[in-house]
Amino acid sequence: MSDDEVTVFVPGHVTGFFSSHPDDDPSKAGSRGAGLTLTDGVTVRLTPAGHTRTTLNGAEITVDPVERVCEALSVSARIEATTDLPLGAGFGVSGALALGTALAANQAFDRQLSENEVISVAHGAEVRSGTGLGDVVAQARGGVPIRLEPGGPAYGRLDGVPASSRIEYVTFGELSTESVLSGDTDRLSDAGLESLSMLLEEPTLSTLLFASRRFAREADLLTDRVREAIEDVSAVGGEASMAMLGRTVFALGSGLSDAGYDPAICHTHAAGASIIDEPTMATAPSRPPRANNVGDL
Amino acid sequence: MSDDEVTVFVPGHVTGFFSSHPDDDPSKAGSRGAGLTLTDGVTVRLTPAGHTRTTLNGAEITVDPVERVCEALSVSARIEATTDLPLGAGFGVSGALALGTALAANQAFDRQLSENEVISVAHGAEVRSGTGLGDVVAQARGGVPIRLEPGGPAYGRLDGVPASSRIEYVTFGELSTESVLSGDTDRLSDAGLESLSMLLEEPTLSTLLFASRRFAREADLLTDRVREAIEDVSAVGGEASMAMLGRTVFALGSGLSDAGYDPAICHTHAAGASIIDEPTMATAPSRPPRANNVGDL
Repeated sequence: MSDDEVTVFVPGHVTGFFSSHPDDDPSKAGSRGAGLTLTDGVTVRLTPAGHTRTTLNGAEITVDPVERVCEALSVSARIEATTDLPLGAGFGVSGALALGTALAANQAFDRQLSENEVISVAHGAEVRSGTGLGDVVAQARGGVPIRLEPGGPAYGRLDGVPASSRIEYVTFGELSTESVLSGDTDRLSDAGLESLSMLLEEPTLSTLLFASRRFAREADLLTDRVREAIEDVSAVGGEASMAMLGRTVFALGSGLSDAGYDPAICHTHAAGASIIDEPTMATAPSRPPRANNVGDL
Repeated sequence: MSDDEVTVFVPGHVTGFFSSHPDDDPSKAGSRGAGLTLTDGVTVRLTPAGHTRTTLNGAEITVDPVERVCEALSVSARIEATTDLPLGAGFGVSGALALGTALAANQAFDRQLSENEVISVAHGAEVRSGTGLGDVVAQARGGVPIRLEPGGPAYGRLDGVPASSRIEYVTFGELSTESVLSGDTDRLSDAGLESLSMLLEEPTLSTLLFASRRFAREADLLTDRVREAIEDVSAVGGEASMAMLGRTVFALGSGLSDAGYDPAICHTHAAGASIIDEPTMATAPSRPPRANNVGDL
């Protein structure tokens, strides 16, 4: 066992619409749908330790998917996560913690799993915990993921909207993923599949936002404050929708600013989750892997 | 038709080992194997124009895969590509030009193809041109791609080595992909499949380099100068191998520098090819999508 400390960055992920596809086999269970991965995400620093202890922004927490990942990989470690994302608001923080822990533990403990195997472990932990169905595979991919078929890498299929955009968001409070996913999801799933076929006919950011708004209405998940913000953005010619599942509104470009809100500002994230510090590369200048770093070109 | 100018960055890709899998259907044809995507890559700027004209680092060139992509998408455009990568040396520049052109044209001409569809067009163009078999799907993925099954997104299957590393490389000249791929590839493919199973047993960077060196020997592609450089890196405890197909040696970390060479220095690239400027986001601050930008966290 190595005592390397490993740091991983996992992008945030807002789902615009989805259909729920439970299965006894967690690698087949998941969701179909689409969303955006964000440059605002979760940084997970893992250090092997005698017993597993997780902190998020300095506060000790128990995260069921993280516990399951550590059990699956037979590791115990100190996991220090930091994020600017609001919690319980639809940004896939639990999926990010599970995936970040799996990637970091695989590296720190030299478990020699492939990327797909690491993703499977994190996806299975998230599904078993009932905290999410599609965030992990989306966060592992990056970009603007379309979940064509549910499940982990062995069964799921992904595509993407080939675009990037500045993204703004505001949050009005929490919404429990468990409560919605444990309720009757038939109507929700029907609406999700209709939105998915719309997006596949025209895989653009504008259609993604349109199909997401339609889903939020059909699935009857809009709260008044969320509906109002989406309408405010539309009123100034912008595109916004609701993050599933949270009382969060996200918009393309400067939609929320233009509508007079004071949003958080980020960008779609080109890369999936990745290790940002490689302990075995001690001789290399310390810096993160760089994607689309125009300075390099 | 829009007159937007679109810019795309496509990472370079060095293949360490591969097996060749031709098929009459270009979406099934391809290669299995593994390699590294690099932060040194190709930037493609596309502007719709009356007739297609391509320049690379300012010099006019004819690139068969690029012509095929433009035909497939029924577009004509001015394509200005720039790269620091050596040409014909195993960095997947032709695949990058095809993929960059396809991504940029899809955006500039509002062709509304999904990411997988764009990749299929570029992969098919590269295969039909005989200029490559696996670079496009690897460059679309980013990271350290393992090509489990050959072909474009509809048939191919990818995994990855979950690691990142500083990469160094030196080039001693060109090697024609066409000449090797058009020759008897049975021995080469047998060696490639053996190296692939080695890597799948232990998907680490070190095993990737080991399996690549083994492939280069078995496939009898090592030139004296390349062999010497690989041995020089091994002599100082480093890991290096040969880029397929070019007289290029790539090394992990500072292997070539430690061995007294004056290599180009880059890093594995976390993201696949992506649009680095979004014309529809005129209101957004002009900047590329950022991946693993620690400044954001």
